[in-house]
Amino acid sequence: MDDVFVIPLWVDLLAVGIGALQGALFAAQFRDRRLDWLGVAIIGIVVGFGGGLLRDLLLDVPLAPLQSNWYVVVATAAALLGMLLERVFSRLNRFITVLDALTIGLFGAIGTTKALALGLPEVAAVFVGVLAAVGGSILRDLLLNLPIALMHVGSLYAVAAAAGSGTIAVLLALDVDVLVAGAIGVAITFGVRVASVLFGWSLPEQRAITRLPKLPALPKRGRRDEDAAADRGRTVTTATGVIHLHPTTSSIPIVGSEP
Amino acid sequence: MDDVFVIPLWVDLLAVGIGALQGALFAAQFRDRRLDWLGVAIIGIVVGFGGGLLRDLLLDVPLAPLQSNWYVVVATAAALLGMLLERVFSRLNRFITVLDALTIGLFGAIGTTKALALGLPEVAAVFVGVLAAVGGSILRDLLLNLPIALMHVGSLYAVAAAAGSGTIAVLLALDVDVLVAGAIGVAITFGVRVASVLFGWSLPEQRAITRLPKLPALPKRGRRDEDAAADRGRTVTTATGVIHLHPTTSSIPIVGSEP
Amino acid sequence: MDDVFVIPLWVDLLAVGIGALQGALFAAQFRDRRLDWLGVAIIGIVVGFGGGLLRDLLLDVPLAPLQSNWYVVVATAAALLGMLLERVFSRLNRFITVLDALTIGLFGAIGTTKALALGLPEVAAVFVGVLAAVGGSILRDLLLNLPIALMHVGSLYAVAAAAGSGTIAVLLALDVDVLVAGAIGVAITFGVRVASVLFGWSLPEQRAITRLPKLPALPKRGRRDEDAAADRGRTVTTATGVIHLHPTTSSIPIVGSEP
Repeated sequence: MDDVFVIPLWVDLLAVGIGALQGALFAAQFRDRRLDWLGVAIIGIVVGFGGGLLRDLLLDVPLAPLQSNWYVVVATAAALLGMLLERVFSRLNRFITVLDALTIGLFGAIGTTKALALGLPEVAAVFVGVLAAVGGSILRDLLLNLPIALMHVGSLYAVAAAAGSGTIAVLLALDVDVLVAGAIGVAITFGVRVASVLFGWSLPEQRAITRLPKLPALPKRGRRDEDAAADRGRTVTTATGVIHLHPTTSSIPIVGSEP
Repeated sequence: MDDVFVIPLWVDLLAVGIGALQGALFAAQFRDRRLDWLGVAIIGIVVGFGGGLLRDLLLDVPLAPLQSNWYVVVATAAALLGMLLERVFSRLNRFITVLDALTIGLFGAIGTTKALALGLPEVAAVFVGVLAAVGGSILRDLLLNLPIALMHVGSLYAVAAAAGSGTIAVLLALDVDVLVAGAIGVAITFGVRVASVLFGWSLPEQRAITRLPKLPALPKRGRRDEDAAADRGRTVTTATGVIHLHPTTSSIPIVGSEP
Repeated sequence: MDDVFVIPLWVDLLAVGIGALQGALFAAQFRDRRLDWLGVAIIGIVVGFGGGLLRDLLLDVPLAPLQSNWYVVVATAAALLGMLLERVFSRLNRFITVLDALTIGLFGAIGTTKALALGLPEVAAVFVGVLAAVGGSILRDLLLNLPIALMHVGSLYAVAAAAGSGTIAVLLALDVDVLVAGAIGVAITFGVRVASVLFGWSLPEQRAITRLPKLPALPKRGRRDEDAAADRGRTVTTATGVIHLHPTTSSIPIVGSEP
């Protein structure tokens, strides 16, 4: 169980480039925010290898994306290319979503096996793998002051990464070869992610268990309205502020789609 | 001074569980945001052992919450339990606030003594202890796009942690046994936190020293209005944006209270 | 190339103090948010040595600002001083902007040379240097829930740090003495930053390459309006929310200026 699922540097860099490109296309939706070229490059770097930085920080090892010049160069170049050629890449929308599903699969497999090789127990290793896969998207939303997409109801993103990473941990515990386990894990993450986009799968919204009403004397209409309001969520003025948020059904926006 | 205030694993996990439970109850206030189950689990993990992760990152040592499977499992389970049984736990509101005060005391004591054992000087060790105690709450607010509660006027939270951690540093410098020092530190953090909730203690709002007016010729009413406006804070359109914020007096919301 | 551009501790602490002071003056613009004294101290610490913490986290070495008591003490004291004497320091506005330009130059030079001394390749080392210089400002904006200033159109801040850090990397590759290279790097960062404030230099806003229209039959006025609208950015309701943002031209606000 000591091996890491290693991929050639060019595959890793390709994954970083796809992430950075997608980050730039995502940022292009926010024209009204006056991001400058540096802002686009930062988003590209963060989406491209932010997950890898978080992974190595959690593992307390030297940060791999900083041991080579290529990561910063590829992420910056891909982000600026994505910005300039936005109209071209927007038409490749579906293709890039598919590539991105492959990318989170790869990052998750690398993260999980690296964590296991360093001696972390299984559940913690899966946690590191998931954060390696989706950490870039969390950092992106933080830097853009957006609600963290993957925490909200939407197509499965972190769940896909967790399914793949969890499978890898189980297979390695069963002494399956790391390359085979890694490939299966990537395939599962890829499959769950693509299927969830195609079929609109999502996790349920947060919801408390409520008792069934015991007294049927209450007028039905009133109760039904109340339930519907509970589903949409009431407008809560919280103790610390009011957030103007208009959530929609899709939490990870499809790249380049019309809003 | 080389000893760490060690608590049994089950106490540590109980503290993580309480934190995660409280995080889920906090998140339940934001039904209109459409957090899904994964979002609730992330908030649970972050509040439960985010402070421990920050502590070990600052200390440049392997991250303790990732060396065992239990932390991720307990935090996730406690968060989902808190979500499902929100109505039950909301009635235990006061009890959970009290448990949380104990929790930040424990996390602060562990952080401070661990930092001192690793050779950090006193003030830096107290800084690490405070961040270990309250880091989870900072990360929670960042991930929920909320104003960072503990930076705003409200009941004493980080200050309670600082009082306890500072006391521990002083006692250890006086060669008091680490268990005694740790217990006193926990008690002080607990006492300050609970007292500040009960009696409404808070730090003063940020405020510049202003000269007393020299000319009494100005009409009093006009001046008084201006002062009151300064106290509430004028509505500032800043160079980078307008934030729609309606702050209230309580910065750390009481769990489960009606907004 | 193994040497680090070392500055005396008091110069480093002076730089931390200037950063913290500026952080407090920045926070003073947000009176309506009810930051308390602790919040001001946190902003001071974050702006003062947050960049140094990020630098050492990225380099996987013990965090230098926590190896001495002075950093926490100086940053906290400078922030509270800045808060109390805001009216005095606001008049020193230009002077503090100039000192800050020197500060980011110093932090960038230290970060770049430290990264190179630890064996990082050039581009990665420049990345670390830039983050050391501007990381505090990013953390500040995150903690205050503000748009990250340096990602938006405004006077050159990170670009100035990158120019200086890049120059240092090139000079060290040419075997120039580290003190000379460091001094030149600081001068370049300082010069670019101050000149960009004086002359209003900025990076272009994000923008996709668009084809020139082929059909001149379209009425000119209509097309021109459309172009202008594209420049300002249309109001986009994104998939994840609506952000109420009124960006202006200056991304790094001049300290103490009237909004």
